[in-house]
Amino acid sequence: MKEHIVSSFDEELQKITARISEMGGLAEEELSMALEAVRLRDGALARKVIESDDRLDMMDARLEHDAIQMLALRQPVASDLREIVAALKVSSTLERIGDLAKNIAKRTQVLNEGQPLRVTGSILRMGKLTQTLFAEVLDAYTSRNTSMAVSVWKRDVEVDEMYNSIFRELTTYMMEDPRVISLCSQLLFVAKNLERIGDHATFISEMTYYVVEGEQLGDDRPKGDPLAAFIED
Amino acid sequence: MKEHIVSSFDEELQKITARISEMGGLAEEELSMALEAVRLRDGALARKVIESDDRLDMMDARLEHDAIQMLALRQPVASDLREIVAALKVSSTLERIGDLAKNIAKRTQVLNEGQPLRVTGSILRMGKLTQTLFAEVLDAYTSRNTSMAVSVWKRDVEVDEMYNSIFRELTTYMMEDPRVISLCSQLLFVAKNLERIGDHATFISEMTYYVVEGEQLGDDRPKGDPLAAFIED
Repeated sequence: MKEHIVSSFDEELQKITARISEMGGLAEEELSMALEAVRLRDGALARKVIESDDRLDMMDARLEHDAIQMLALRQPVASDLREIVAALKVSSTLERIGDLAKNIAKRTQVLNEGQPLRVTGSILRMGKLTQTLFAEVLDAYTSRNTSMAVSVWKRDVEVDEMYNSIFRELTTYMMEDPRVISLCSQLLFVAKNLERIGDHATFISEMTYYVVEGEQLGDDRPKGDPLAAFIED
Repeated sequence: MKEHIVSSFDEELQKITARISEMGGLAEEELSMALEAVRLRDGALARKVIESDDRLDMMDARLEHDAIQMLALRQPVASDLREIVAALKVSSTLERIGDLAKNIAKRTQVLNEGQPLRVTGSILRMGKLTQTLFAEVLDAYTSRNTSMAVSVWKRDVEVDEMYNSIFRELTTYMMEDPRVISLCSQLLFVAKNLERIGDHATFISEMTYYVVEGEQLGDDRPKGDPLAAFIED
């Protein structure tokens, strides 16, 4: 017997939403493992992050494919169209967060070749904050909670400020002890990656707001000053 | 009199293609100005880059909007669908290249506060190579020239190798003269930004190949070793 399945637009949308949640969970797990790998100087854990990132890449590619099919075949308008556009963008944002976590894991492998550095503690605190904001914005997106989304959007300034402070801490440390320059350069990039994850989290805030309100959240997100001039890449 | 315009799919596609070319030109110009700002220590030119990047952001947003409308209303299939998907992705890639050029320009402003550094010469050579590959891949995309696209895709390894060499040069320089650590950290990010522009150029190669051949270019792009482990973020 041949099966003939016709699913409704809402069913398809629910599936996409469920996949975004799954991807969010994977990205969170990658970030958490990457930071643990830094903390424990655990090369095996770092390799696990690097390997598991493939799955997120594939899920993003599949979601993109399906979302574009939905756009082409269902011709959604208004809030349905916004849902799909947001899903497409959040998916690729999660894929990029996974890439950044993977990059942190890769740098761990070089960090393990040298002595433990005291600034690692600051990096891990910054990591903790980034994880918190990322978890909150995933909740906000899933539950369509705009006030929670706006709160994350505003609080990203704290990540920026921690980044600026770590930048200064690292350069000071390098000046005091030139032997740690090469390792500290790796930590500089780890901090930068976390700061970018924070930026991506604010983008998910913006997408949450866009889905619910049908308009942009605005351009005036608070940013850490004055080194913050460098955060937007 | 009310005007009623019904344009064909091909006409709409041509307009989108023309806009991608214009965006490519803008991104090239931004990169060129940003590198000139580094070379000449020209803060006014750097500000010009920062201001002009808004235009690229707006063009990307508009193109995305129009491409999604086309997907929803025209229901394209096969090569028409690939054309639109590629345009969407190339547009957002160009927007990101503009962001990276803007970030280079922003760092110029900090670099100008300190003494000129000798490693700037290496950065500018890396910038030149990045510009060349970016210009070639834009040509390849516009003319649907897959062999040119594949050539850029392969040659990005040269950018990666220059990045690795600059990374070593910068850390050595910082060890020799701790007073330049803060400035060299800025140059480290400038080099990293150029390396990421090279990666984005290879993505445009992949999109060119995808539009023409209908399949992916593959996963085995040559990469500079062993620091290349850090290039993929």
